[in-house]
Amino acid sequence: MTVWLVGAGPGDPGLITARGLDLIRSCEALVYDVLVAPELVAEAPDDALLISREDIGQAELNELLVDLGRRGLETVRLKGGDPFVFGRGGEEALALAAAGIACEVVPGVSAISAVPASAGIPVTHRGVSAQVTLVSGHSAYGDDLDYAHLAATSGTLVVFMGLAHLSGIAARLIEHGRSPDTPAAVVSRGTLPDGRSVSGALHEVAALAEGLESPALLVVGDVVAVGDYLASALVSNRAGAVAS
Amino acid sequence: MTVWLVGAGPGDPGLITARGLDLIRSCEALVYDVLVAPELVAEAPDDALLISREDIGQAELNELLVDLGRRGLETVRLKGGDPFVFGRGGEEALALAAAGIACEVVPGVSAISAVPASAGIPVTHRGVSAQVTLVSGHSAYGDDLDYAHLAATSGTLVVFMGLAHLSGIAARLIEHGRSPDTPAAVVSRGTLPDGRSVSGALHEVAALAEGLESPALLVVGDVVAVGDYLASALVSNRAGAVAS
Repeated sequence: MTVWLVGAGPGDPGLITARGLDLIRSCEALVYDVLVAPELVAEAPDDALLISREDIGQAELNELLVDLGRRGLETVRLKGGDPFVFGRGGEEALALAAAGIACEVVPGVSAISAVPASAGIPVTHRGVSAQVTLVSGHSAYGDDLDYAHLAATSGTLVVFMGLAHLSGIAARLIEHGRSPDTPAAVVSRGTLPDGRSVSGALHEVAALAEGLESPALLVVGDVVAVGDYLASALVSNRAGAVAS
Repeated sequence: MTVWLVGAGPGDPGLITARGLDLIRSCEALVYDVLVAPELVAEAPDDALLISREDIGQAELNELLVDLGRRGLETVRLKGGDPFVFGRGGEEALALAAAGIACEVVPGVSAISAVPASAGIPVTHRGVSAQVTLVSGHSAYGDDLDYAHLAATSGTLVVFMGLAHLSGIAARLIEHGRSPDTPAAVVSRGTLPDGRSVSGALHEVAALAEGLESPALLVVGDVVAVGDYLASALVSNRAGAVAS
């Protein structure tokens, strides 16, 4: 018996790993995040115990996983993105370790790069960006962001879950010295069929993003310009697309 | 006809995405990186054209992909990790876009988090690290690293491909103000069966890593201490492990 912390990927159900999908298909209990694709939950065996994580706090969830492990159930804890990137998988693993329950991590495709990629944006690109900085744009981690440092970051800045605080984040980066003309993009529901993105200068990107839905990522840096070119060129090259 | 830029994941063949595996199984041509698992190459149809990327320069490779696309072959370009994270996928996509060839990106599990996870290290952890900075530790991108900025980075620092320059990188981080006692780890061949890792203080990690093999990642930050605890606790909890 093992509790598997499995990354479901960024949204598109085809982006789960082959091993993660195999584990879902053979599990006895599945505990899944709200943002996990329903198509993946549907892959669990008919007699598996299915538990949505919705309305379960982190402490209670840790206890639930320990309990399922103690009951000897082969358990998949299916988490959005990657369990160890802003996913609190470490906390779940620590709780299981402390209780003496066997636990394994199966990494997933993180939104870090997959969500920008869905808008054509490579987070690194030769001659444009050789560094990526990832932060969480709300204070769930109990830390305020160090805007002075972030504004001076070279390369690409990716802010997770920034939609609610988007205009404040953009304003503070500019306040701390980032050029208001820095290319920026907001990618909403990236990799999903209803995904949308907007791009423009950092000073205007919050206004452009009005009406977009969560989850969303903010990408700041010159790679956004590469993405603008790629997104339009690749779409127009698609089989069946009308040539311009 | 489409040229698919597919991420093969960090090494373990089970970590490719379900969609990536489907595309390999139905492709007509497969162009693969040296570090891609042979098990994945073996999934291509018997009559598919298999081309190892070894000894092909980037410009020639871009031309090859355009040529395969022009010949109308359903082509998978299988890249280690994620195509858009230090993967030069952007360059291949630009070449295809410029030539009018349809191209799609299928993200992969990046070494960013999967390789630290293979040593038990979560790159973010509540109360410990809410920021991750990724850089490439050789100068393939034509940029020297900004050590003054990197040394002052809060959260977790992950250096790709740092093995050859490991002692120089550690020394320069310390020179620029990072504490020599900062927890650090080197993870070699992470997610592969012969993967190994070492951890210790930043000032000694290069000496500890002697004899490790490429590819390797350097992880710097307090999350390494979380990883040390998790790695030992989880291994001792494994089914069949001798209780200590």
